Amino acid sequence: MGMVGGGKDAFIGAIHRIAANMDGLVELTCGALSINPEIAVESGKILFLPEERTYLTYEEMIKKEVDLPGGKRIDFVTIVTPNFAHFAPAMMALDNGFHVVIEKPMTFTLDEAKELKKKVDETRLLLCLTHTYSGYPMVKQARQMVKNGDLGKVRKIIVEYPQGWLSRLSEREGNAQAAWRTDPKKSGKSGSMGDIGTHAAHLAEYISGLKIERLCADLNIVVEGRALDDDGSVLLKFDNGATGVLIASQIAAGEENALKIKIYGEKGGLEWAQQEPNTLLAKWLDQPMQVLRAGANYTDRLSSFATHNCRTPGGHPEGYLEAFGNIYRNFALTLSARLEGTEPTKEMMDFPQVDEGIRGMAFIDTVVASNQSEKKWTEFVEG
Amino acid sequence: MGMVGGGKDAFIGAIHRIAANMDGLVELTCGALSINPEIAVESGKILFLPEERTYLTYEEMIKKEVDLPGGKRIDFVTIVTPNFAHFAPAMMALDNGFHVVIEKPMTFTLDEAKELKKKVDETRLLLCLTHTYSGYPMVKQARQMVKNGDLGKVRKIIVEYPQGWLSRLSEREGNAQAAWRTDPKKSGKSGSMGDIGTHAAHLAEYISGLKIERLCADLNIVVEGRALDDDGSVLLKFDNGATGVLIASQIAAGEENALKIKIYGEKGGLEWAQQEPNTLLAKWLDQPMQVLRAGANYTDRLSSFATHNCRTPGGHPEGYLEAFGNIYRNFALTLSARLEGTEPTKEMMDFPQVDEGIRGMAFIDTVVASNQSEKKWTEFVEG
Amino acid sequence: MGMVGGGKDAFIGAIHRIAANMDGLVELTCGALSINPEIAVESGKILFLPEERTYLTYEEMIKKEVDLPGGKRIDFVTIVTPNFAHFAPAMMALDNGFHVVIEKPMTFTLDEAKELKKKVDETRLLLCLTHTYSGYPMVKQARQMVKNGDLGKVRKIIVEYPQGWLSRLSEREGNAQAAWRTDPKKSGKSGSMGDIGTHAAHLAEYISGLKIERLCADLNIVVEGRALDDDGSVLLKFDNGATGVLIASQIAAGEENALKIKIYGEKGGLEWAQQEPNTLLAKWLDQPMQVLRAGANYTDRLSSFATHNCRTPGGHPEGYLEAFGNIYRNFALTLSARLEGTEPTKEMMDFPQVDEGIRGMAFIDTVVASNQSEKKWTEFVEG
Amino acid sequence: MGMVGGGKDAFIGAIHRIAANMDGLVELTCGALSINPEIAVESGKILFLPEERTYLTYEEMIKKEVDLPGGKRIDFVTIVTPNFAHFAPAMMALDNGFHVVIEKPMTFTLDEAKELKKKVDETRLLLCLTHTYSGYPMVKQARQMVKNGDLGKVRKIIVEYPQGWLSRLSEREGNAQAAWRTDPKKSGKSGSMGDIGTHAAHLAEYISGLKIERLCADLNIVVEGRALDDDGSVLLKFDNGATGVLIASQIAAGEENALKIKIYGEKGGLEWAQQEPNTLLAKWLDQPMQVLRAGANYTDRLSSFATHNCRTPGGHPEGYLEAFGNIYRNFALTLSARLEGTEPTKEMMDFPQVDEGIRGMAFIDTVVASNQSEKKWTEFVEG
Repeated sequence: MGMVGGGKDAFIGAIHRIAANMDGLVELTCGALSINPEIAVESGKILFLPEERTYLTYEEMIKKEVDLPGGKRIDFVTIVTPNFAHFAPAMMALDNGFHVVIEKPMTFTLDEAKELKKKVDETRLLLCLTHTYSGYPMVKQARQMVKNGDLGKVRKIIVEYPQGWLSRLSEREGNAQAAWRTDPKKSGKSGSMGDIGTHAAHLAEYISGLKIERLCADLNIVVEGRALDDDGSVLLKFDNGATGVLIASQIAAGEENALKIKIYGEKGGLEWAQQEPNTLLAKWLDQPMQVLRAGANYTDRLSSFATHNCRTPGGHPEGYLEAFGNIYRNFALTLSARLEGTEPTKEMMDFPQVDEGIRGMAFIDTVVASNQSEKKWTEFVEG
Repeated sequence: MGMVGGGKDAFIGAIHRIAANMDGLVELTCGALSINPEIAVESGKILFLPEERTYLTYEEMIKKEVDLPGGKRIDFVTIVTPNFAHFAPAMMALDNGFHVVIEKPMTFTLDEAKELKKKVDETRLLLCLTHTYSGYPMVKQARQMVKNGDLGKVRKIIVEYPQGWLSRLSEREGNAQAAWRTDPKKSGKSGSMGDIGTHAAHLAEYISGLKIERLCADLNIVVEGRALDDDGSVLLKFDNGATGVLIASQIAAGEENALKIKIYGEKGGLEWAQQEPNTLLAKWLDQPMQVLRAGANYTDRLSSFATHNCRTPGGHPEGYLEAFGNIYRNFALTLSARLEGTEPTKEMMDFPQVDEGIRGMAFIDTVVASNQSEKKWTEFVEG
Repeated sequence: MGMVGGGKDAFIGAIHRIAANMDGLVELTCGALSINPEIAVESGKILFLPEERTYLTYEEMIKKEVDLPGGKRIDFVTIVTPNFAHFAPAMMALDNGFHVVIEKPMTFTLDEAKELKKKVDETRLLLCLTHTYSGYPMVKQARQMVKNGDLGKVRKIIVEYPQGWLSRLSEREGNAQAAWRTDPKKSGKSGSMGDIGTHAAHLAEYISGLKIERLCADLNIVVEGRALDDDGSVLLKFDNGATGVLIASQIAAGEENALKIKIYGEKGGLEWAQQEPNTLLAKWLDQPMQVLRAGANYTDRLSSFATHNCRTPGGHPEGYLEAFGNIYRNFALTLSARLEGTEPTKEMMDFPQVDEGIRGMAFIDTVVASNQSEKKWTEFVEG
Repeated sequence: MGMVGGGKDAFIGAIHRIAANMDGLVELTCGALSINPEIAVESGKILFLPEERTYLTYEEMIKKEVDLPGGKRIDFVTIVTPNFAHFAPAMMALDNGFHVVIEKPMTFTLDEAKELKKKVDETRLLLCLTHTYSGYPMVKQARQMVKNGDLGKVRKIIVEYPQGWLSRLSEREGNAQAAWRTDPKKSGKSGSMGDIGTHAAHLAEYISGLKIERLCADLNIVVEGRALDDDGSVLLKFDNGATGVLIASQIAAGEENALKIKIYGEKGGLEWAQQEPNTLLAKWLDQPMQVLRAGANYTDRLSSFATHNCRTPGGHPEGYLEAFGNIYRNFALTLSARLEGTEPTKEMMDFPQVDEGIRGMAFIDTVVASNQSEKKWTEFVEG
């Protein structure tokens, strides 16, 4: 793995490295870790990278790596830069035969996303999008239960993602994370919806197997002086007639990272909360609620997709890093299978890819358009 | 107290009686308990009512009671009939000098509500509306904390009220509660929004002290064969610029009565859930979350409005019936004070009255209008 | 009902009155509410008692009531005085043909308890002991599930009752409740074990249907200057070979009233916590945990003993006062049936009686003896 | 790192590898992964070990590694074999200059433990004992709060560790984990107390800073046909006069890994539960309970020991593997500092070492002795 971005002090780069390391399947062997050459070099040292593979730009990295011999060359490039700097290295990596892992949202614009998809289709390389929350075993369990018809037809989805960390104008107080994420030039045309709304939308579609068809968005800039929405609520219509609500807020003071989804069907409902991720509540019309647990010993009740993504037995909690690790692990296993010419299992192939990236960018476009519209409903168009 | 409706087998009548009994301040002394004379008589017997005060119609009850001597005559009439039958007995009671307690929603139409208000203003009698959930001590605590500015300016309110009991067409399976509540002729122009959405809206306005100014509603008839909405989601704009979401659903399969509110301000947030009502979560920007508990011994931290409405020390849970009882108790204490010519305290006077009834009926009108509109926003007008 | 003790400001007297009032089956008609005549009179006024039935002593009350005509005379006496003053009024009431309700622990000594039992057996009158916690519907549900063999043979019981209210020497700071409860002359030979350990022991035996056979107690006076134990832990052996632990503490700083029981059998376990009383957790060896809820609609899964003791549908929480009310209600229904010459149902007869009172007093004796012994095990003897 | 034991299919070996990998500080470079040569070789392949460093015995591994040149040779040996096979490889590793990581309990007997300590003292090498639960940030937070006097003098400790996985005689049904853990020749003189009671005892002493001085144990073989205790309860006396209860059970049917500790002092109490490890409840005498969260932004309230052991911001849950990883990370950082001749910080040095191993073995000896004694109290002697 070669990393673009993620120098010392970056948040998500460190997360990617732990996630990639965890299962001993992926090794960080080179990087273009910062656009600041000093930080790039220093970060390389901290991460025990050899000097000659501590690159100063992604262009340099891709060019040099492509010339290395097979056993030594990286297999894929991980891109953990701010949103505006995803597209170019991704395209170049694909053009040079490298698979790609990208942080979400996939690109800066929907057009870029579509171009990237064309490239992926053309090169038949893998593009893995790190929608972390879909890596949790109990999220996968939920998806499989819906798929199996345990709930009957899905009728209503409520997904909320309240955070409090942008309750103040922290971008002016030296918070680097806040700075780029609230800057339209780096983040894109939406703040809260781009950063966390896309996670919520992905989770809803991933678990339900449905697609958002129309929506009605109300986006707000709550903290004065900010250029992008830091809060928003959206009414949803899904392609099977179900309705829903999506809430994403970064000004929900006192909340940490409280992503939560409830999905109701004819026969029952499911509830999952990211801050207590090893538990999936299954509520039934005529039976007591059940508390399904990751790693539990009732393996007949847990989907193979859940158990494949657990490392520990029930009661030994796994968390965010393991969910992230599952995405890397499944990507790596799929990649290995490909390299070895074998067929990856369907459990391995269950990680977010370029199509999910398109959905995310289209979601951003649609909520922003809806917010500007006086009409109630705006069609969700992938463009 | 004389009761209109609430014969044996009625749900809410029994609740009213327990709530009224609880503190020994109110006594059921007569009733017109059913439009079915046999049930009226039988119910009177079960409730130990004297035969001569077991009336067959509310008209009879009011006429006869008004002629009884002061010490014997009832002080007020409680109306627990289906919505369409609130207005007439309420008007007649007021016209004859009786105070009134009414189940929510206050009337069948907004026009009736406004007429009722005129009558209340004219007669200067009390009208108490049983928005139960505002009787919980920790709801009152939340209101007072917002009032005291503990959260700073309120920015976002999320109130959801999922129930699952109408997930099937139970009104066709002999469920009497379901039957009238889903019947437009008895319930009014909205189902889920009238029955539980009004509770949610009241709770949001009661705690925040704000008024809904505009909204965007999406109401659904999810269960085929039903005439009224059984589910709906609403985007809200409040009069201080805050936004919100209100969800009311009766098809959230597997849910019991999961009313929950989250309210966020500049400095922190509050969360209260009806199914665990003795707990109020107070989340802070820079401090650990606090768990405030009804009846707790840190009386300096609990508002006098909370402590006035507790009967037991912390850890001895009070519930729905006590919340309901608080409304009766406060109404009765206010009434007693009036009758004795003293001034009730502000804690006593804190129960829902005719103005809240108007708001509720206007809420129903507005969500129904918004649902039919293609425009995003509909103004909230009390008419 | 005539009440002995429970004047204004007394804690448990007020609780008894609300519990008795709640269902409209019991009426407070007279009382000897305090040994202080002024308080007795004033309390009578506050409670709307007629002057002539506001007695100054329990002897006066019993003597005068017994002379009243049938329809007017009370049916039973409720004794809510401190422990040392339970026995005499109870004996006198029984001797005069009145049924009795007594606060736990039943008496001051085991000898008194045994004498009381003899009298009850002799008179065939009812004696109801208010072990409140056994009045909760989900406690009854747990008992029935054990009885039905859902858990298989019971193997382990852990019951803990931590409170924090005696963490300081509050009895010296004017806390009247603390004063008598920590006074060996009023409370008996044990403090924490008498006051709350008896509740815990009763709960364990009630749910499991087992009897404690031997125990090993470690009692402590944690707060200096106190004469009775304010904390203790006990190892238990039950008559079927199961073992257990009982913890009762009044110096668990920061706890409210956190009674909790876990009971494990061959096939699964049950967990119930008083502060969230409408929920019973059922844990299974090979299946997901179930969350059983009071008032839920899966009535086939809920025992008739649970549903008989619910007033509201699922999600409308009932609490401590309703649990207390259930004891009164069942006692009153059993009494009514008797008076009417009919047979009360087994659900009605399920309230704590004189035998449970004996067990409680024997528990106190045994833990105190064990605490003083250097031997590990002390036999549990009812004497 | 060279690993002894932990071949494919072993439980704890895989956990150690993930924990060690996670932060990129430790690399598995060789192993004697099984006493079965075939499994050893196959496991080496799976783990990408070079063939020449896939050893067949720990003796071979240590002998060959010690001859490798400095940069290539391992720094330490990790021992993850069953208990009876800890001592010999540990002694040989130390004798050959390798630092050591050992699974708990440290040895098979207390005598071995004491000999090991002598060797550690003599060689001045590091011995790290993987008492995982002390690696959780909120456990460290609890320890520091007690140390800072936030609770005042500690008065009562309740630690319980219920598991259900040995509720049946699984050791006869091919469960390899169950087989060795219930075999006195491999596990030692206690089952439940050795396997999980030692964790509970360590947690109590670690957080409170107190030492158990005397205890009274009741151990049970609940499942017929088993040779070692699978359940036990222990009364505790600590060296400051505090008392406590320790419960360890492997027959608590339906429980996963429900380690939980409550610790009460003069001013408040702390509660931590392993299955929800990112939360620490702080209960106060006169203030609302606080919910302290790992990674939270109120860094002034979180100890440096907590923050040093967090990888993610609040609301991004870390779990069991991260706690385990913290032990490796702190051990590795301390080791690096030593190798570089710098001083590790006190946060780095906070991992369980040989003295904790002695305490654990003495705990096992003492509970077994107490269980066999008819006296109530048995002194806790380290020998």
